[in-house]
Amino acid sequence: MLKGKMVIGQSGGPTAVINQSLVGAILAAREQAAITGILGAKHGLKGIMEEDFIDLTMQSVAQLEEVAATPAAALGSVRLKPGKAECEKVFEVFKKHGVRFFFYIGGNDSAETAHIIAEMAKEANYDFCTVHIPKTIDNDLRVTDHSPGFASAARFVALAFMGDDRDNKALSGVKINVVMGRDAGFLTAASALARQAEGDGPHLIYVPERTFDVVQFQTDVAAQVGQHGRCVVAVSEGIVDVKGNPIATTGEKDSHGNLQLSGTGALGDTLSALVKEALPKGTRVRADTFGYLQRSFPTIVSDVDAKEARDVGEFAVNHAVSSVENGSVAIKRESSNPYSSSYFITPLSTVAREATSMKDEYINDKGNDVTQAWLDYVAPLVGELPKMGRL
Amino acid sequence: MLKGKMVIGQSGGPTAVINQSLVGAILAAREQAAITGILGAKHGLKGIMEEDFIDLTMQSVAQLEEVAATPAAALGSVRLKPGKAECEKVFEVFKKHGVRFFFYIGGNDSAETAHIIAEMAKEANYDFCTVHIPKTIDNDLRVTDHSPGFASAARFVALAFMGDDRDNKALSGVKINVVMGRDAGFLTAASALARQAEGDGPHLIYVPERTFDVVQFQTDVAAQVGQHGRCVVAVSEGIVDVKGNPIATTGEKDSHGNLQLSGTGALGDTLSALVKEALPKGTRVRADTFGYLQRSFPTIVSDVDAKEARDVGEFAVNHAVSSVENGSVAIKRESSNPYSSSYFITPLSTVAREATSMKDEYINDKGNDVTQAWLDYVAPLVGELPKMGRL
Repeated sequence: MLKGKMVIGQSGGPTAVINQSLVGAILAAREQAAITGILGAKHGLKGIMEEDFIDLTMQSVAQLEEVAATPAAALGSVRLKPGKAECEKVFEVFKKHGVRFFFYIGGNDSAETAHIIAEMAKEANYDFCTVHIPKTIDNDLRVTDHSPGFASAARFVALAFMGDDRDNKALSGVKINVVMGRDAGFLTAASALARQAEGDGPHLIYVPERTFDVVQFQTDVAAQVGQHGRCVVAVSEGIVDVKGNPIATTGEKDSHGNLQLSGTGALGDTLSALVKEALPKGTRVRADTFGYLQRSFPTIVSDVDAKEARDVGEFAVNHAVSSVENGSVAIKRESSNPYSSSYFITPLSTVAREATSMKDEYINDKGNDVTQAWLDYVAPLVGELPKMGRL
Repeated sequence: MLKGKMVIGQSGGPTAVINQSLVGAILAAREQAAITGILGAKHGLKGIMEEDFIDLTMQSVAQLEEVAATPAAALGSVRLKPGKAECEKVFEVFKKHGVRFFFYIGGNDSAETAHIIAEMAKEANYDFCTVHIPKTIDNDLRVTDHSPGFASAARFVALAFMGDDRDNKALSGVKINVVMGRDAGFLTAASALARQAEGDGPHLIYVPERTFDVVQFQTDVAAQVGQHGRCVVAVSEGIVDVKGNPIATTGEKDSHGNLQLSGTGALGDTLSALVKEALPKGTRVRADTFGYLQRSFPTIVSDVDAKEARDVGEFAVNHAVSSVENGSVAIKRESSNPYSSSYFITPLSTVAREATSMKDEYINDKGNDVTQAWLDYVAPLVGELPKMGRL
């Protein structure tokens, strides 16, 4: 039986429930005799390399429950794609501290990091087990039915569109809302849950899985304004033109080589200008970029998401101790109605590096809306939404 | 005793509780024998001029309660500053339909409209009573201690900053959040409620009541980054330079002559560029513009705000019937701890046209933060906030 300390870290963009996974893992680890110490790495890999750890055996359950209910990574996060030298440093620190278990909460980049370190340990004949704990509001991890963190962000987006659609109905005009999701439209598509009655927005939904054609967009908006006297548009921050270029960007890149799309109003303003160009002068056109509120807003949490995020943390630890098998935790949907799920382990290589995107059957033929199949998939994850009253 | 139909309308930017006021007025009116019919004007003055009314005597209480809990104006709203011709048209419609009571839910512009129509009725010796029902997320109405709609928006802003500050702490860098409030900083200042522990953001708060100096801003941010390794900034959309010019705007104006500040990311992007200029290359700088979510997000409602919004609607109707005196409903704060309030009527002229802004004692000497006096004022309105857990 493998016995030793564990390190746990959080990576990438925070979510509303990433601390549920952390707390699930900590509480499970405290029950395991094989785990002789619980080290929280501050700011993920960065903290490991700098040996900047928090002892996670000391906190009361009450304190941990407060942390679990708090959005954004409590240990601190990092956006760092490690090279060989960094991975070697990490591995060296693990050996030095007698770390035998490593749990990394993050997306496909984090799974890749865990994978590299696991391979290193194997080569060095160092007994070691690493399990990746899935997390991303983008919902773009392979294998798993969906990713913890997504459903709470989707709930925020659905609620935001419900209210904003009422706002737009009250004052008319065109409203464009830019939603997070670099390469996958899952979160943008969740806006469709805001529709409760005929004529409710969003009236158009654009995801990065389809080429964004500027002229078609102008035509679509004009048609919706003709029909409803107004138009609410959901658009992913990641939409690209036929050449694969973003419609608007600041040009700044992070260390993964990803272009900065969030934290700027550039895309919304560009789309506003396009709509103004296509509609009669004086038409009220506004754009909001939902930004970081989508992933960190307190109290807007899906119950299913909170539970599953807790469960995958716990599952990762129990799996590592009982089987000493590397992998990534994945969610299997057992039933949509009533909703139920279970957990399993998939090899790190099946999750690492590459991401996934929306299935074709979730997007309509015109590429400007979602389908019933999508709603059937997403609704149980997000949970019941308040009914919008109307006169 | 004045007897006849009433018209009620909603005007200006929606709020999360504007429909509480509508439903408060409807339910009170149904109890008043003096009110022989309840006409809801669609899109405020516009609906009156076009005789586009909804009969509000028919809906079940259950339906009305759903409406009350729904953000954004259920009757539809309008941004229209009526000229003499429009007011005459409104008055003509009122006479035609035997309307003796007019309730207008809105800000200072709506109070002004009510005032003009009341003056017309007096000149024409038409027995008539109009009561303005206060509403604005900006909290800039004179006389009243605070405006219905403000506290719910303030709650949204406080929660948003609580989560976003955790997000920024997890990933570091500078985060700028642009908050609504054209000429008054109340809503931006509510961000200070997000602070629960030493070092929590927002670390800087800029309101339109103080001149925004670009160089001072750059110096302030650099100092905070030096102290905390990061910086979260709350800034009002309405900040102006020493000449009174907005720091960034699209140049578009509404019919009140107000510049468009919301529904664009221009200010946030401008401020981001200024921070990048002042800090070492590669510093992570992001900006979000909270936009319309602040005023229309379902489920984020202050309990005090919901109750008071309901009460002022009811108070307006009961006052109009019992005293036949024109005016605007205002809130008197009886006590802050425990919080309690009462209602009174103030002449329309004391609320109409001009708005108010934050008291000097609410803003610190440097003009980059708020004071304890401000927190004492705003905290009871917003209500208890969740505790952010930390390790």
